[in-house]
Amino acid sequence: MNQTPQIRHALSTKREDDFAAWYQEVISEAEMAEESGVRGCMVIKPWGYGIWERIQRRMDDRIKAAGVQNCYFPLFIPLSYFAKEADHVEGFAKEMAVVTHHRLIAGENGGLVPDPSAKLEEPLIVRPTSETVIGAAMSRWIQSWRDLPMLTNQWANVVRWEMRTRMFLRTSEFLWQEGHTAHADRDDAMVETLRALEMYRDFAETELAMPVVAGEKPENERFPGAVATYSIEAMMQDGKALQAGTSHYLGTGFAKAAGIQYQDKEGTQQYCHTTSWGTSTRMIGGLIMTHGDDDGLRVPPMVAPHQIVVLPMLRDNAEDEALLAYCDELTKTLAKLSAFGEPVRVLLDKRPGKATQKRWAWVKKGVPLILEIGGRDAAGDQVSVLRRDQLWTAAAKANFVAMKKGAFVERAVAELEGVQETLFTQARERRDAAITPIDSFEALAAFFSEDKRYPGWAQVFWSRPTGDELEGVVQKLKALKLTIRNTPLGDTDVAGTCLFTDRPAVERIYVARSY
Amino acid sequence: MNQTPQIRHALSTKREDDFAAWYQEVISEAEMAEESGVRGCMVIKPWGYGIWERIQRRMDDRIKAAGVQNCYFPLFIPLSYFAKEADHVEGFAKEMAVVTHHRLIAGENGGLVPDPSAKLEEPLIVRPTSETVIGAAMSRWIQSWRDLPMLTNQWANVVRWEMRTRMFLRTSEFLWQEGHTAHADRDDAMVETLRALEMYRDFAETELAMPVVAGEKPENERFPGAVATYSIEAMMQDGKALQAGTSHYLGTGFAKAAGIQYQDKEGTQQYCHTTSWGTSTRMIGGLIMTHGDDDGLRVPPMVAPHQIVVLPMLRDNAEDEALLAYCDELTKTLAKLSAFGEPVRVLLDKRPGKATQKRWAWVKKGVPLILEIGGRDAAGDQVSVLRRDQLWTAAAKANFVAMKKGAFVERAVAELEGVQETLFTQARERRDAAITPIDSFEALAAFFSEDKRYPGWAQVFWSRPTGDELEGVVQKLKALKLTIRNTPLGDTDVAGTCLFTDRPAVERIYVARSY
Repeated sequence: MNQTPQIRHALSTKREDDFAAWYQEVISEAEMAEESGVRGCMVIKPWGYGIWERIQRRMDDRIKAAGVQNCYFPLFIPLSYFAKEADHVEGFAKEMAVVTHHRLIAGENGGLVPDPSAKLEEPLIVRPTSETVIGAAMSRWIQSWRDLPMLTNQWANVVRWEMRTRMFLRTSEFLWQEGHTAHADRDDAMVETLRALEMYRDFAETELAMPVVAGEKPENERFPGAVATYSIEAMMQDGKALQAGTSHYLGTGFAKAAGIQYQDKEGTQQYCHTTSWGTSTRMIGGLIMTHGDDDGLRVPPMVAPHQIVVLPMLRDNAEDEALLAYCDELTKTLAKLSAFGEPVRVLLDKRPGKATQKRWAWVKKGVPLILEIGGRDAAGDQVSVLRRDQLWTAAAKANFVAMKKGAFVERAVAELEGVQETLFTQARERRDAAITPIDSFEALAAFFSEDKRYPGWAQVFWSRPTGDELEGVVQKLKALKLTIRNTPLGDTDVAGTCLFTDRPAVERIYVARSY
Repeated sequence: MNQTPQIRHALSTKREDDFAAWYQEVISEAEMAEESGVRGCMVIKPWGYGIWERIQRRMDDRIKAAGVQNCYFPLFIPLSYFAKEADHVEGFAKEMAVVTHHRLIAGENGGLVPDPSAKLEEPLIVRPTSETVIGAAMSRWIQSWRDLPMLTNQWANVVRWEMRTRMFLRTSEFLWQEGHTAHADRDDAMVETLRALEMYRDFAETELAMPVVAGEKPENERFPGAVATYSIEAMMQDGKALQAGTSHYLGTGFAKAAGIQYQDKEGTQQYCHTTSWGTSTRMIGGLIMTHGDDDGLRVPPMVAPHQIVVLPMLRDNAEDEALLAYCDELTKTLAKLSAFGEPVRVLLDKRPGKATQKRWAWVKKGVPLILEIGGRDAAGDQVSVLRRDQLWTAAAKANFVAMKKGAFVERAVAELEGVQETLFTQARERRDAAITPIDSFEALAAFFSEDKRYPGWAQVFWSRPTGDELEGVVQKLKALKLTIRNTPLGDTDVAGTCLFTDRPAVERIYVARSY
């Protein structure tokens, strides 16, 4: 009797069985992060932080190339700054960490307590975002049109008190960059808003190999106080949408609240038009749910802390020395190569432990290329190569390909480029196949009915209702656990009827479940 | 009548007139940082933050090269973690920012107030350092000797509530790196403690061109709970000492408090020996007070955000175009050069404004090389070079040196190396000349008497008293506003008598005023 060989996957949970549990298992098995014991805050472990460092480095290069200057602003923001903002911003979020004391003393029952005599006159808020404090700085820094545009960015931690947290996706503390810019007029500010959005789109697709839709959020999803909010939206393997970056045109509202004015060429005082844009450690959650498989994470080579791991099969005997020398030389040779404009990142893993155990640890971490090298390989000037995106043979065995060392060195960079491209192509094809045009509300409800687990996104015609009419749509969608994701930029196919208003469409939107 | 030409310096305050005011003026005129309006917190502006980014990048390279892995730990630490530490650590510092609420609501008299119904059950402390939370993680991560040494580092912001703040030197919030490592035994931990110290010494002297003394702090200056504390001490131009980095051997005390244990090769549970080591944005304060002069900052080329600035002397006429093309080509040529193992960082400053104003702005920022280029220079294939460490001619004029463009390109890297070396040599000579051996307490008191403004450091023999005897010395020194800085490593000249105990010395120490 013939039987299809069964793959024994490295993870115990499969994506199709329980996507949420699978996500947690990837993070845990790839040693990316863990709960810290502090409510809503995670510990980012070396592999997770290493990916963030790669993201930071390459994003920062793009930010600097656009002429934006990095600064650093205070962690604490006086309460009064928010009171000012709360006045002009409807929907102002109030879940924030509030610092009220600056000293501890011994308590009556032992232990430590906040010192009542060290109560702050004005409470300080741990920044949830830095619009207000950066706005105050810009009001000092900007005098004339010569100072514009003012382009600043900050890499920082921010805190938003979250009730339900999930690692990388929604944590009380997270790491991000926030760009804040001031311009002479609307046009210049809009150019900047869309430049940042396009930077994010290209970064997501190039560096993270994560296809995204860049578009405008509907009115109800705007950043509080923004005139227009844009996002990049990625589709996770469970069909849900992940907002992976946003860019806001803020009009003159924030400038008026903070007093950001400039003297124009005619000598008249004008308010600046401002923008802000941000991406965060959330992108790592997107990366996991875009590229992970039932054997763990798969990291796009561009952001992999190690792109190649060399694994000598040590046997604790006399031959180890020659084997290590062989691996060491190979590692050095590979490190001299350049991929994606940077030196290849290659690790020689000499730690004690069984080679197969170590192999599977690296597979779960998603290293693009693993080279397992035994004594016979070394003697024969060979390497055995495992490509993370081609992990299994038809016979359900680890898909090692043996080749001459020189041949591998010659094609190593092309292999890395191949992994990067494959991850993107697979993700894009999956995403595109899971977008379905839908032309009635009933069909929409059926499409997202309970028995379809990972339905994907619906693409629907939209007449752009506003105010109460929009609110009605939002509530109808909410009942189906759905939200409007965005209106893709550059979509010209508007020849249809709005699903919700029956009026002629002016654009199309994506509707989906989301993170 | 002959008169010595008077230099008209770029700053209004001279170092010799008012060092503290001069320091503030440098920071302000070089646009490095400013008060934020938030108590004790500064805004780090692009030039200051750019220097920090250079410091971070090069320090991080050294940290990674030592096999240390970066992680990220929570900003907030539960109060109970500190209660644990307060038990075992005498001298536990209690000035910290305490988070007590997680929501704001509208107050009765308008504005916003902390929501009484959102009071945290357990207050959270904004990390002043991360020993406790990293210790808790290590207790989870370390099981056996195979996991050791565990070498971690974090780049983060920390908060210590300071009553008197001074930008870069002592701020409530500051940026730093904190290394935390765990080892199987004392010897291995001591090797790491001293490795980190030596890394700091070499970094300070190589990258920052700031000569330092690496040595052990006296018992009374140890980090609370540490078995031994080491520091690098730099001498500022006012003769005061600045502790610019510390490395601690913590013994097993922190491991016992956090439960960091491992199974040794014989199967026995053992406590780890831990270390921690840190440097911060304080180094930038040290850099200013080591290299600044009466014309502003001088930045060592290795950490200068721009090493060369090209300044076209634009005249708003038809010739500007050719001039800009010439400068653009020169900028690109220079950017292809490599200095200190990195591409040369060169900026073409095309902003509107007068060339001389822009020149002095760059002088005050301390750019190592300024190239001022007029139409005639461009026509003659020339450049005019101003070296920041050779700013004035004998005739008190800006010391521009004209040369052929090709000749400058050929020697540009050597010029940068020259500035780096000059800054270090000048600082070392100044420091060495301001260290005075002193052999009696009366001489010490006289040396630091009020009429000597910038006396420098005293080098004295020391019998290493402890306990009450040490405390007596500390109080005597305190009355003179003095502290013991450290005992330099490798100092073998101990043939003398202790200034304080009259017993034979076992080592020499530096005594000084300090920041």
